Parts: sequence; C-alpha cells; structure tokens
Amino acid sequence: MTNTKAYAATAPDSGLAPHGIDRRELRADDVAIEIDYCGVCHTDIHFAHNDWGVTQYPLVPGHEIVGRVTAVGDQVGNYQAGDRVGVGCMVDACRECEACQDGLEQYCLNGMTATYNGQDRHDGSITMGGYSEKVVVSERFVVRIPEKLEMAAAAPLLCAGITTYSPLRHYGVKAGHKVGVIGMGGLGHMGVKFARAMGAEVTIFTRSENKVAEAKNQGAHHVIISTDDQQMADAAETFDFMLDTVPVQHDLNPYLACLKYDGTHILVGLLEPVDPTLNAGNLVLKRRVLAGSLIGGMPETQEVLDFCAEHDVRCDIEMLDINNINDAYEKVQKSQVKYRYVIDMATLKNAA
Amino acid sequence: MTNTKAYAATAPDSGLAPHGIDRRELRADDVAIEIDYCGVCHTDIHFAHNDWGVTQYPLVPGHEIVGRVTAVGDQVGNYQAGDRVGVGCMVDACRECEACQDGLEQYCLNGMTATYNGQDRHDGSITMGGYSEKVVVSERFVVRIPEKLEMAAAAPLLCAGITTYSPLRHYGVKAGHKVGVIGMGGLGHMGVKFARAMGAEVTIFTRSENKVAEAKNQGAHHVIISTDDQQMADAAETFDFMLDTVPVQHDLNPYLACLKYDGTHILVGLLEPVDPTLNAGNLVLKRRVLAGSLIGGMPETQEVLDFCAEHDVRCDIEMLDINNINDAYEKVQKSQVKYRYVIDMATLKNAA
Repeated sequence: MTNTKAYAATAPDSGLAPHGIDRRELRADDVAIEIDYCGVCHTDIHFAHNDWGVTQYPLVPGHEIVGRVTAVGDQVGNYQAGDRVGVGCMVDACRECEACQDGLEQYCLNGMTATYNGQDRHDGSITMGGYSEKVVVSERFVVRIPEKLEMAAAAPLLCAGITTYSPLRHYGVKAGHKVGVIGMGGLGHMGVKFARAMGAEVTIFTRSENKVAEAKNQGAHHVIISTDDQQMADAAETFDFMLDTVPVQHDLNPYLACLKYDGTHILVGLLEPVDPTLNAGNLVLKRRVLAGSLIGGMPETQEVLDFCAEHDVRCDIEMLDINNINDAYEKVQKSQVKYRYVIDMATLKNAA
Repeated sequence: MTNTKAYAATAPDSGLAPHGIDRRELRADDVAIEIDYCGVCHTDIHFAHNDWGVTQYPLVPGHEIVGRVTAVGDQVGNYQAGDRVGVGCMVDACRECEACQDGLEQYCLNGMTATYNGQDRHDGSITMGGYSEKVVVSERFVVRIPEKLEMAAAAPLLCAGITTYSPLRHYGVKAGHKVGVIGMGGLGHMGVKFARAMGAEVTIFTRSENKVAEAKNQGAHHVIISTDDQQMADAAETFDFMLDTVPVQHDLNPYLACLKYDGTHILVGLLEPVDPTLNAGNLVLKRRVLAGSLIGGMPETQEVLDFCAEHDVRCDIEMLDINNINDAYEKVQKSQVKYRYVIDMATLKNAA
C-alpha cells in the first residue's frame, strides 16, 4: 500500500481536511497516476455535504482528474510512465453487459463504479477521487490527454465536457441546426462551445438581462431572456435542440414550446421530479422528445478530448488552491465561478 | 350546395339529432364521397360534450371515414367515381411549410385543418365530420382503401390505426425489439397487432388479473400486471419501447423503469399535465426518452392501410346503428367496447 495525501470530507460536519488515503497496489491492468489537477464539480459538493444521504466518510471527491502515469501493471498495453492521462466519473463497470460492450459503461446493467464513493468490484473498498496526490485506475477507464491540450483546462472535460458533448453527438447536432442552451455554468458554457464547434447556431437562454454580455462572451450567437414573454413567443417552434444544464427544478414547458416538431429537449443536469410538471400535449402535438443523458462512455470520453484538441475548444477555468476549497464550494453554489474551478494539486503539499 | 343528412351534436345539452348539413360544391381538387362507415373515436365524445371548451355547434363528429367516390373535381388525378376511399383526422393543411413538404401535415406549422370542428382555409366555414351521408375532401387528404381490406374494419385505421402505427414506424420497431403496450382499448389493441406484425415481442401491461385472457386474445406474447410490484420489478430495464395509449393521467415512472437504457416511452393518448410528475432521473440515468406522437401524415396514412392489407392486420370492431350512438358513447367511456364501434351509415337513413 502507498499512503497518499488526499483532501477528504469527514462526517458529520462535512469539514474538509487532508488525510492519508491508501491507494491500492497495482493490479495487472492498473495505471498509477500522479495527479496534477482536479476540477471541482457541483456533484462533489453534494457528496461532501451528504445531500443525497449516501456519502461514506471519509470522502475524497473529484472526478475531473488529470495527471501523469508513474507506473503500470503487467498487462497494461496502452500507457507507460510519463503519459499525460485523465480519469473521469467512472473507474470500473462489469465490462460484459450489452452497455459495456457498446462502450456505454455509464449505463452498465450491473452498475458502473463511480470514481469516488463507489465500491471497488474486487476488494469491496470505497473508491476515492481526485482531490489527492495519486490515484490507481484500471486502464480501460483511463483516457489520454492530447499534447495540444493544456492539462489544467482539460480536467473539466472529463465531466462537464463529456456530459454536454455526448448528447450533442448522440443526437447528431450539426450545421443547420438551431440549438438552445439553458444554464450558463460549467456545463452550459461547454455546451455552447461544442454546439458551435459542431456547426450549429447557438442561443443561450438566461433569466436576466444582466447576463446578456456574458452569454455573448461564452460564444452564443443569440441570447433570449427567458422571462421576457415576447422573446419566448417569438422563439416558438424554432429550435431543433435544447441542451438543458439546469441542476434544479424549473419549468420545462416554455422551452418545449420553443422546439420545432421533432425537436429534442435534453436534460443533463436535473435528477429530481419535474416541477412544475410537464404538459404531455407539448410532446404529443408536435412529436417532440424529452430525453436525458448521463456523462459518456469511455470511447466517447477519449473522443471529446480529441475533439477539443482538433477544434481548439477550451474550458474556461479558475485555478484553485486546495486550502480554499470550502470558499470555492460556496462560490460554486452561488454561481460565482467562471466557469470551472480546477485545483492545482501541488497546493495539497502545503495543505494544513 | 348539396343538403346532406348528418348526425350532429347540438348545444347546450350535447344531445345528438340528425340535421341537414350542406356539403360544399366540388373545388377543382375535391373528391365527393358517399360514406359507408365511420368509426367512433373517444375524441368524438370530448367534442360532442364540449369537454375542451372549443366545440362549435352544430357539430358533426367522425374522423374515421370510409366510403365510395361519387364525383371528382377537374384537377383530381388519383381518384374516380366508385373508388373505395378513406378520410382520417385532417382535411387540409398549408401544404407549403417544412412539415407539409415532409408529408407530416399533422404538424403543419400553420396548423392542420381538422376533419370536424376545424375551419376551412378557403371559405372559413366549420368543417363537418363523418357521421354523415356524404363528405367532400381535397384529394391530398383522401386515401385509398386496398381491395383486400373489409371496408367497415378499415375505418378505425384512419385514427386508432395510424396513431399507433406511426410512432412504431418512426422509431423503427422491428424483430428483436421488446415492446410494451399500455392500455387495452381501441388504440392499444391496434398497437399490439402492429408491433407483432413488425416482428417485435409484445407485452401488454394491465392493472387487472381479470384482463389477462383478453390481453392474450389481443395477440400479446406476454402480460404484466402493472399493480403487481414483483412483476414490475422483474421487468426492470428489459423493454426497448413502451407504447402508452392511456388517455388519462397516470404514473409514467414505473413504466420508465421497465425500459432499457436508450429505451423510448411513446405517449399517444395523453394531452394533460403529467401527474404524478416525472422523475427526471428516470430519463437521465439511463439515457431514456419520453416522446409523443400525433396521428400520422398523409403518406403514412396510406402506408398503414397498405401495411394492414399486406400483413392481414384487422381492427376488431362492433357494428353500430347510429340511433344507438348515445348509448355507444357511454360504453366507450366505460371501456365496454371491443375494440372500436363503427357506425353503419346506412342506418342514418332511418334515424329519428
């Protein structure tokens, strides 16, 4: 065992403190990674605070991990020491079911193993994430960071990036399509960049006039103030897709009305009951579709990194000292980050 | 003008009585039809009773119309006197928008003209449906009844049939797919027949043990009692499609849980707010889709008739004397018809 420094949330007060966390000895298909950067995802906060009642403490959050390979197991063929690599939201799955065989491990019929707060399929231990010096992950769940990408900015591609890229690809967004993006946070701003890079005409929907300049700055061709009835009425039946990144309950019906017949509203942020409820007529009368999408499979997670290198797509980040993580959590909750915090893991060495 | 006998609902008591209803003189692209049979759709009842507050009396319901051509306008090229023809839920649309050009007139961007209680695009008159001796309809909205089909049983294909056929075709249901059908009425029983004819393995979901024999009789390979928690748990993540024909509010979540990842739940009966509400996680966590579908376009309406002739698919009907229409409405509302009433329009001649 290698005792590794990690920043962990501890019960019951959810305060964070550095811990020694054992990383497992290398299995034959394992890759050992020294972590350089780790993105801060809203999900980290939910788990640290046990919002969903399933957290097992001590918790080491973090599933937007980039670093360098330090060692590999005997049977690892694709990576060697020194390689620039990433780890996203999953570190294992059954590898045998239909979903796994399709490269859609996130929908594994036997349940994927989450990067943190999951249960290791071999030894039953609880998985620990990327707020850490090191991590050991099976080769299949490691991706390569293209040379052209800056390491720190690549980190959020492993969750915020793949989460928005995957459905846009799945539904075949391309030139000629009109795409609306709802939500201007870490996911939303990546959605805008991807939809643009795929050739679509992109509109950001925002509730506030104050955010129009920021929306344009994110790369949107157009901005619609969703609280302006006239603007929403003018947009009726004009969109092919809505990419809905809002993680809290909100009314879907006004956005559905903006979709053309056969248009698709894609939920990537909401896991709660839909409230206010959906009017079924908004789907039936125009053959519209309400869809959901969860991160992406491993082949597609490599694809999004390669896509970003090829199309010069970059996540906008703010670098973070791990000693300021609690303050950062508050700012994420208040939407005061533009657009993703990335922890410089070198700061963990000086953590109190 | 030709004064034609029709059975009309009159305000305010929604009682029905035979009326003289003028059918328009033939326009250049019109087909005049003597009606032999007309199916009774639940929608007829909603309109007759003004359930949706939009009925304009006198109302002549009926949008599952079959009969014979008696005359055609100067520019009609596809039909001649004596042809066996049908008219479904639409009698016009703008014909110029993207949807109309795609043969999806039901999603016409300028609004389709409904077969009854719609407004004629040329003279502004209110359209009158098929509970009538005659009807005059533009050629584009007339379909041909294949010789192999029995006329009376063909009538319900023009609404109940196309409504269930269209989404199964649109989503590419085929051999190897597992399809669940929810609802055992006029639409549901057609859904079972179509899904079977397309090669799928079909399961009927019913709330009652008492309906198992009936469900098997409809042609289902399997029956699941939706109120049996164990049966529903066993069905988790096993279906590719759900065809949901239930026209009243019901909980979609247990059925969504029965869909595989990438599975699709298709609403064809519900136009109301979804209640109980949808759990968004049921879509997001498995990339499932909630879709809606409305009747079908004119090319597809011809296709469903040809498909039924080719695959020997027949709607189960009960013949109805128009003098018993009010009694029939009550039985439809109590789900006591197997599975579709079809009015023998010859009985209109003797109507009181």
